[in-house]
Amino acid sequence: MNNYPTKVYLNGEILDAKTAKISVFDRGFLFGDGIYEVMVQINGRFFYGDAHLKRLQYCLDTIDIDFDVKSLQKEIEKLLIAAELQEQDCLLYMQVTRGTAPRTHSYPKNTTPTVMMYAVPKKLPEINQIHAAVVTTNDYRWEKCDLKMTSLLGNVMANEFAMQQNCFETLFVRDGVITEASHCNVFFVKGNTVYTHPADQFILNGITRQIVIDLCNKLDIKVVEEGVLFSEISEIDEAFLTGTSTQIASIRQMNNHFFYQEDAIGKITEKLQQAYLELK
Amino acid sequence: MNNYPTKVYLNGEILDAKTAKISVFDRGFLFGDGIYEVMVQINGRFFYGDAHLKRLQYCLDTIDIDFDVKSLQKEIEKLLIAAELQEQDCLLYMQVTRGTAPRTHSYPKNTTPTVMMYAVPKKLPEINQIHAAVVTTNDYRWEKCDLKMTSLLGNVMANEFAMQQNCFETLFVRDGVITEASHCNVFFVKGNTVYTHPADQFILNGITRQIVIDLCNKLDIKVVEEGVLFSEISEIDEAFLTGTSTQIASIRQMNNHFFYQEDAIGKITEKLQQAYLELK
Repeated sequence: MNNYPTKVYLNGEILDAKTAKISVFDRGFLFGDGIYEVMVQINGRFFYGDAHLKRLQYCLDTIDIDFDVKSLQKEIEKLLIAAELQEQDCLLYMQVTRGTAPRTHSYPKNTTPTVMMYAVPKKLPEINQIHAAVVTTNDYRWEKCDLKMTSLLGNVMANEFAMQQNCFETLFVRDGVITEASHCNVFFVKGNTVYTHPADQFILNGITRQIVIDLCNKLDIKVVEEGVLFSEISEIDEAFLTGTSTQIASIRQMNNHFFYQEDAIGKITEKLQQAYLELK
Repeated sequence: MNNYPTKVYLNGEILDAKTAKISVFDRGFLFGDGIYEVMVQINGRFFYGDAHLKRLQYCLDTIDIDFDVKSLQKEIEKLLIAAELQEQDCLLYMQVTRGTAPRTHSYPKNTTPTVMMYAVPKKLPEINQIHAAVVTTNDYRWEKCDLKMTSLLGNVMANEFAMQQNCFETLFVRDGVITEASHCNVFFVKGNTVYTHPADQFILNGITRQIVIDLCNKLDIKVVEEGVLFSEISEIDEAFLTGTSTQIASIRQMNNHFFYQEDAIGKITEKLQQAYLELK
């Protein structure tokens, strides 16, 4: 079970989690009008922290939330000290919303963005040992999946759909093509070639996704940014999920299709997991 | 400019708007995991209040938020008394989220839904006299638009797009077909026939939309629930928006296309506005 963190950073203050409250007129609450980011501290540094903060800035700029992520550096430090997680392995959640204003759909003028962050201890395994079962659903989400926004009901429903079936994730299928999962990206291997959906408006361009593509290039594994057809799944040799907490997780089963018997794992998946471990 | 209400109803309590706060772990804030409803009190009663509450229940049931809207009746009464709006013309906003829990995408067990409501004085005009200019955009939203959820960033962005151009609304176009607007439904008239998009997963089935269809039937105006093609707009004689606050609003201009010169208005639009007024 997940637990609440001990401390929450909210607009410059460090609060006990129970007393960290926002106005009911915060646009994050009324409209899901905010952007979030999750990163992990491993061995005393945020793993690809700059890439996460850069994406946060990109998403905020895209929806015209006027906030400079540079100011977060020393605030994160403050939070980690208060939470006694300095240099400890932990997960940092950050959310910036447009701020508080009387309810009206369009962007209100002169609001101050709400900044909320918390950190919880999180020791990721060296290599993710799960052999995930996944299900699929029609990708009913919007066409701006490249934005890491808090209007997440679509992803929440898909994740719940997996949990209801005791599965690890739900893969989305848009027009016959597998795009991504509810909070992971997905990769497939056919022969010696790795396939993953291009980083367009239909997926969130995961930092781990980008790292894995870089690793493929370094390891001379051919990687093609092209979506795999749902109908072609029987021709696929290996499949894996990527994500900040998930790292690289082998997929054993998709719906009724098994990629492996029991706890076998694909050669390329294993090679990438090993190479990923060495980056930490 | 919109103003904050004086009082907010939050989980059974009546609070001053400034002190009405929710946990940062409310899933409404973290995930846009909630449903909302807006209705207006006119001449001492909520206009089609039962239909609004029924839709709220339907949406809550659809996303498995365990809450019975029947309990709201006396809470609304309590709020209106506190806000000194009993029997006054006002707008009532209601939001129910899945509640507060440590952050995890799937539905947490045993949470108590968060219920937030407020009312503000609102005297709607007898007939909406605007002659709206609207713009259009690709309908990039998800495919469950029949859910009145608080994950509203897509609608918010489209509404802002209209405001940037000093327009009243943005119409969405999906696969060449005009679906609805950012917070209104849209109707078109060609000859003596009224067209509006069917109430499927691509639109919110507005209460005012349903009333207008009923009025057409009563007035022997042929109504066809069929989307109008963006490319056919030059063949359209009249266009209007519907919504709880908007009521029935004539559209004068869509992008560079003018339905009317200056402040003229279509005969059927006018007839429906008159018939709508008589329902109050």
